[in-house]
Amino acid sequence: MDTIKLAKVARGDAIADLVLKNCKIINVFTREIEIGDIAITDGKIVGIGEYQGKEELDLKNRFVAPGFIDGHVHIESSMLTPPQFAKIIVPKGTTSIIADPHEIANVSGIEGIKYMIFSSIFGPLNVNIMIPSCVPATSFETSGAIITSKDIKKFRNNKGVLGLGEVMNYPGVIYGDPEVHKKLEYMADFVKDGHAPSVHGKELNAYKLSGIKTDHECTTAEELHEKVARGMYIHLREGSATRNVKALAKGVTIQNSRRLLFCTDDKHSEDIRNEGHINYNIKLAIENGVDPLTAIQMATINIAECYKLDNIGAIAPGYDADLVVFDSLKEIDVDEVYIKGELVAKGNKALFDPVLYTNGYVTNTVNIKDSSKVNFDIKLKNNRVKVIQLIPKNVTTTKVIREVTIKNGIYKQDNNSDILKLAVIERHHQTGNVGLGLVEGYGLKNGAVAMTIAHDSHNLIVIGDNDQDMKIAMQEIERIQGGITLVNNGKVFESIRLEVAGLMTNTEVKIIEGKLKEMDKKAREMGVNKAVDDAFLSLAFMSLPVIPELKLTDKGLFDVTKFALVPLEE
Amino acid sequence: MDTIKLAKVARGDAIADLVLKNCKIINVFTREIEIGDIAITDGKIVGIGEYQGKEELDLKNRFVAPGFIDGHVHIESSMLTPPQFAKIIVPKGTTSIIADPHEIANVSGIEGIKYMIFSSIFGPLNVNIMIPSCVPATSFETSGAIITSKDIKKFRNNKGVLGLGEVMNYPGVIYGDPEVHKKLEYMADFVKDGHAPSVHGKELNAYKLSGIKTDHECTTAEELHEKVARGMYIHLREGSATRNVKALAKGVTIQNSRRLLFCTDDKHSEDIRNEGHINYNIKLAIENGVDPLTAIQMATINIAECYKLDNIGAIAPGYDADLVVFDSLKEIDVDEVYIKGELVAKGNKALFDPVLYTNGYVTNTVNIKDSSKVNFDIKLKNNRVKVIQLIPKNVTTTKVIREVTIKNGIYKQDNNSDILKLAVIERHHQTGNVGLGLVEGYGLKNGAVAMTIAHDSHNLIVIGDNDQDMKIAMQEIERIQGGITLVNNGKVFESIRLEVAGLMTNTEVKIIEGKLKEMDKKAREMGVNKAVDDAFLSLAFMSLPVIPELKLTDKGLFDVTKFALVPLEE
Repeated sequence: MDTIKLAKVARGDAIADLVLKNCKIINVFTREIEIGDIAITDGKIVGIGEYQGKEELDLKNRFVAPGFIDGHVHIESSMLTPPQFAKIIVPKGTTSIIADPHEIANVSGIEGIKYMIFSSIFGPLNVNIMIPSCVPATSFETSGAIITSKDIKKFRNNKGVLGLGEVMNYPGVIYGDPEVHKKLEYMADFVKDGHAPSVHGKELNAYKLSGIKTDHECTTAEELHEKVARGMYIHLREGSATRNVKALAKGVTIQNSRRLLFCTDDKHSEDIRNEGHINYNIKLAIENGVDPLTAIQMATINIAECYKLDNIGAIAPGYDADLVVFDSLKEIDVDEVYIKGELVAKGNKALFDPVLYTNGYVTNTVNIKDSSKVNFDIKLKNNRVKVIQLIPKNVTTTKVIREVTIKNGIYKQDNNSDILKLAVIERHHQTGNVGLGLVEGYGLKNGAVAMTIAHDSHNLIVIGDNDQDMKIAMQEIERIQGGITLVNNGKVFESIRLEVAGLMTNTEVKIIEGKLKEMDKKAREMGVNKAVDDAFLSLAFMSLPVIPELKLTDKGLFDVTKFALVPLEE
Repeated sequence: MDTIKLAKVARGDAIADLVLKNCKIINVFTREIEIGDIAITDGKIVGIGEYQGKEELDLKNRFVAPGFIDGHVHIESSMLTPPQFAKIIVPKGTTSIIADPHEIANVSGIEGIKYMIFSSIFGPLNVNIMIPSCVPATSFETSGAIITSKDIKKFRNNKGVLGLGEVMNYPGVIYGDPEVHKKLEYMADFVKDGHAPSVHGKELNAYKLSGIKTDHECTTAEELHEKVARGMYIHLREGSATRNVKALAKGVTIQNSRRLLFCTDDKHSEDIRNEGHINYNIKLAIENGVDPLTAIQMATINIAECYKLDNIGAIAPGYDADLVVFDSLKEIDVDEVYIKGELVAKGNKALFDPVLYTNGYVTNTVNIKDSSKVNFDIKLKNNRVKVIQLIPKNVTTTKVIREVTIKNGIYKQDNNSDILKLAVIERHHQTGNVGLGLVEGYGLKNGAVAMTIAHDSHNLIVIGDNDQDMKIAMQEIERIQGGITLVNNGKVFESIRLEVAGLMTNTEVKIIEGKLKEMDKKAREMGVNKAVDDAFLSLAFMSLPVIPELKLTDKGLFDVTKFALVPLEE
């Protein structure tokens, strides 16, 4: 930044590039609304007051806030690559994000993280990357990559790296796992994100000790209060599945609000497009009693301070000219969005074209050992078996015991029961691992669903009522090298290609959402329960071995309560 | 820090080194008072709650606050070296300081800064050093050293360096001085302190632009408000000469307080010992209407956040166990002080011995060119001359025109007038420079005062009513290699040796204060005006060419309004 040139503009001895006249400026330092002009040059705010510009826009007393920041997000959950993701969140007023590429890192390791950095370079969105701390999530599954403490030490000083991603292995922190503590040690001088659901009391002390700075897993005002008291910054999260803003808004006070932030964590593209992004967190907080200017602080300066991002989060000289224009302090219905002084969105529409990018490290990531020979037979020694029971609108499951039919020592599908087969096929290293299990509560008939979104290792997950359709589904995913497919009566109904790590696509969001809608409609016709929130993405958590109660990985059935692989038979 | 070991203590599976039981803990995150134990191990706070310790101390419901931080201080103003300075401020509850060694840097350059770092290593006080940005203050004086932007670039990454010291050259920032902007550029990623008295409006925008983060020169609530609105952190200063807390306390609100800090800037040892240090800022703020917990935040977490010091400023797991114990939230009368878990002061008494240090770079710094030949004759072309008029209790002066007696073209002292001779003798590089001028309002008769504290270049300044005593005073300072001396009727009455850069001493504070008291008493007997605040240190600002109106440097008489050297004759 040419500070000598900018100082000349600031003091009024040169004309600014752009002046936004007559703004109602949200001042996040004084928590006041200030009337004035904002002078912008070289993408920086140079002055507040009365200025002349080469270009002057009369904002006619509309509100101007600093660009919103998402304090913690997994871009992958949108199924969009960073450039396509930017296109849907920037029109909502989000100008910066703290992204934890945990999902792609489980598939492609450090190269996956690099991909997220590279693919964000040419877009307007300010993307700050946290190095995922828990890849793989457990040793009971086969991930595409492992990120060790040594990898972290080597990678930490790269441009684009801001800190350490959510440390989900909270038992490892609290009970002194040496590798977890090495990661914390190597990232001592960086911001470290936490993930500590319901951790409190002395365990919270132990978790906070090594400098983990944030938590986005609070669900009650009491939990929020205790964690703030112990020195943590707390994200009030509003994603697709986990929605905490309403409950936590009760805990926001004038005393603690400076330590409170917003995030989305995981939010589907459709929800972002319909509800909004961080602007929706702000709106919900206001609806639930938080002062509007406090809520805007929680979306801007508080996050910038927590993550030590000195150039964003406020409207003041020297800050990036990231600005959001809207008319009501109730709706936060974003109209115009400026990033580094450029108008990048207006009327809910991005004004930039995403610069798309892929590379060989993150494509062609579906490597199944001889898929034609994959066998879905479940051998059983007795007919009392553990079945994964879906809980609608929830990523947890319940373990139930059911009696099933066995023929020649092999599980036989009963078309009158609600039980379906579930398989998790290792797809990274051609190990040949296939985990097999049973699920109830999904409801599909005469077909199968397969996909490569399967937390956290993102192996190939298949569900179906017959082996033939399951095989077709699996092989369709192999053919398109990652994505989601729906098979009905021996034929592929429709597929969505997620060419980047089997998780994300460069395809335009509307095409993806259109396909998903049709596939969902068809799946419901094929019997998928109305209670199941999302016919496809609900399955993505059936393989996540860190959330109760019974899950399936490529290594087999996993009892989360026992934290061990278990046989199907009871 | 052995985080695995500490986590064990935190979760209650091992005994803490020390537990402070039954504390009223000042929680600076929630702005609440919490009752509980503080568990400490390896100098760190490991837990809040109920803990067992090898050593347990019942605090019987006394208040425990995080150790106080001085956000901006020139240690040199105490005339004590860092170890001796620590000994007087730690008992007042100050456990960390942000020190700007501007004065010693003007004498000894980078070696002077290094001395401040080295001499702080072995004491308990946490000393964070800012690289002085304006050495020398102007080109109209001869300093001992110059610190260029290149020096700063080279030195910035050293251990102990926290940021850039107050950028006093605000015209240079605002009007684009290339060397000033280079310094700012090289320190882009560091915290940069400001100094911008009365700078506002567009000039403030220009000043703030390059990332200068703080200002400690605010004198009104309005000035404070505008500077906070533009994104600055504001120090509420309470030093010996400049006392701003009372006026600024009016401007403290629940909305802006997170951006407000405390500092002392320049405070004499006697004032520290009598009034207090940062605890006195807190007390004054409370007396003037600031909520006690807000005031404590301003002395702790706010400063830690501003200066990005993650391990201090709060009582929470992972923070240094820097704690202050007191009984009243009105008086902040500090009793016990812990630093890194060690009891370092009790009942206003330091419990540690200062580890003293000097080296050859900062001693023997008085190098006058042939002192026996220094001539104090003032040659005058006419008898109407500019005279520096002292303003009591003020570092500014007034320019007055007086008619004086000339004999053989040389100024002749009139024993009935109030006018005295003032000389500034260059003492760093043996240039032979001697600036000569006239002063009124001081009042000394039959003697001279000389010292090496003479802002900002700290040359040798001498005042007297006769040349002989002035010469004796100058030569006494040369003999003791820096300090303060009082000469009466041809004889040295008493001297204080300031062996470090002519500014500071390792001698114990009580000896220095005792001598100063006697010298002051004698000086008053010799006629020094009662109105003159300090018989010696008031003279130290007569050479400071950045504060109005008429000053004297080794290069001659300086008119600050014209910002130029001027002849004595009008």
